[in-house]
Amino acid sequence: MDRVKVAVGVDIGGTNTVFGFVDELGNCLGESSLPTNPGNGPDNLFDRLFEKINSSFSKFSEQNEIVGIGIGAPNANYYKGTIEQPPNLGWGIVNVLEIVKKYTAVPVSITNDANAAAIGEMIFGAAKGMENFIVITLGTGLGSGIVVNGELVYGADGFAGEIGHMIYDINGRECGCGRRGCLETYASASGIKRTVFELLAELNSASILRKFSFDQLTSKDIYDAAMKEDKIALAAFDRTAKILGAQLADVVACFSPEAIILFGGLANAGKLIFDPVKIYMEEFMLNIFKNKVQIIPSGLSNGNAAVLGSGALIWNEIKKKIK
Amino acid sequence: MDRVKVAVGVDIGGTNTVFGFVDELGNCLGESSLPTNPGNGPDNLFDRLFEKINSSFSKFSEQNEIVGIGIGAPNANYYKGTIEQPPNLGWGIVNVLEIVKKYTAVPVSITNDANAAAIGEMIFGAAKGMENFIVITLGTGLGSGIVVNGELVYGADGFAGEIGHMIYDINGRECGCGRRGCLETYASASGIKRTVFELLAELNSASILRKFSFDQLTSKDIYDAAMKEDKIALAAFDRTAKILGAQLADVVACFSPEAIILFGGLANAGKLIFDPVKIYMEEFMLNIFKNKVQIIPSGLSNGNAAVLGSGALIWNEIKKKIK
Repeated sequence: MDRVKVAVGVDIGGTNTVFGFVDELGNCLGESSLPTNPGNGPDNLFDRLFEKINSSFSKFSEQNEIVGIGIGAPNANYYKGTIEQPPNLGWGIVNVLEIVKKYTAVPVSITNDANAAAIGEMIFGAAKGMENFIVITLGTGLGSGIVVNGELVYGADGFAGEIGHMIYDINGRECGCGRRGCLETYASASGIKRTVFELLAELNSASILRKFSFDQLTSKDIYDAAMKEDKIALAAFDRTAKILGAQLADVVACFSPEAIILFGGLANAGKLIFDPVKIYMEEFMLNIFKNKVQIIPSGLSNGNAAVLGSGALIWNEIKKKIK
Repeated sequence: MDRVKVAVGVDIGGTNTVFGFVDELGNCLGESSLPTNPGNGPDNLFDRLFEKINSSFSKFSEQNEIVGIGIGAPNANYYKGTIEQPPNLGWGIVNVLEIVKKYTAVPVSITNDANAAAIGEMIFGAAKGMENFIVITLGTGLGSGIVVNGELVYGADGFAGEIGHMIYDINGRECGCGRRGCLETYASASGIKRTVFELLAELNSASILRKFSFDQLTSKDIYDAAMKEDKIALAAFDRTAKILGAQLADVVACFSPEAIILFGGLANAGKLIFDPVKIYMEEFMLNIFKNKVQIIPSGLSNGNAAVLGSGALIWNEIKKKIK
């Protein structure tokens, strides 16, 4: 009997690197992880990663066959197969496809984490059958993966899709990119925390959040406070949603997508973020686009979404070849 | 001998409708025009248009053969073959493909004027060989045609590419779309005129432009004044370029195009607009995109650019079929 084909999905994060074996239907087997330890450099990581992939796969190798390895990583370039100056890994330019050749003969593809999420949604998730949609990941920063005419938008250099670095306020908050006022300094887990501190300064309302230092406060604390009707927390969600909604109206004017999928830490706040984002987006929307664009949650089960996305990268390459 | 194939390129404007016969190399024969007279309705226009196309073609019909008709028009929808609520024609929803069937059996395609310009640049002009680029038309408004992976971005509904309606300032200038602060209220021939009046109020500098009423002033007058070093006119170009440059940096963050082509009335100001737009765009650009994106003029000879663009629409369809 033929062995069932699986793609290895790898997600390289600042703290941990996660992987799993993803079949054509989006089932994920043998998920596992290892510390990224970025300080030891990329060669050290890939040494340990492939050792662990091989040992994990040994229990599936009778029934399964690996058809490719998809990797999601910060600042990864699909065209060049590189990871370039990843902010939270502290590496320079790393030629991943070159390194990985030492360990495997199967096809390897790499893309940034938000693009992997978009391909995951297209192949296995909430965007199945859609040709035009956008995935926004609301984590520490704001990442985005954009699909037009059924294909990911990589642009001329492979780095397209930086919605998080559209400038919302030219004189606004300092951004990690060295500029000011980028959308991700407002609409992200760290952005909503900054907004809480802005509101604590601005308003006199009593709030649980007045007891937290900036270093202590997490977006989970803000969510918990909002669920208890804390006025500052609710105002922070509202202000975050207003800025994100307004900016998404601009994004719709460019792309006219069928749906925008919100994903990641801040999206887990559910109605607290989805409802006002939708309302504000419609408020700022050009007439011809009003009430056309859905704002929806990820269709990938949360635990292994990143792995499914990276695995989907390989399944998408296989589909493109069949076309 | 085989007759040389030509596409009819038609550009429907608020005042005049222009057409011509465009061969595969971008040569344009027999250009002609007629008054649009939008008040008499679309059927009247197409009656007169096809009568004139037929009489004009009679002198080419021995050597040439028509392979299709491409139409560029405001608010045209490529997917549906319609013109929908065009602001300067005063029509409702017009099913152009349905109307045109009465007059011809060849394939007919329709798209909005900025998209036609983008296809014209891709097939015959400055974007030959590019897979990712953007055309910005700076006329009364600001139109845009966006190409990703070699294909026009139409979005889910056919109306994508409204960069002119990205909001630059939420509390800004009234826009014809009913909202405030859209980019086209600043960066367009009418936008720079509004900026002159803003500057006349703001600054005390002597200026030729203080002699013009709002109704009198044209963008040509502003250009002429700037060429004579008029401070208000120069400041108006600078402010316009700053706003456009900043917004284009946002657009680059989304699309990472190889080039942005500026086209139309205001682009005819040449260095006065190209140089500062480039400088400001780079100033506001995310690091990874700095010094990668060209800002270039149209590669279509000015007289018949709109006709070439509409004709290119048909040649592009033929190319897609050969693929």
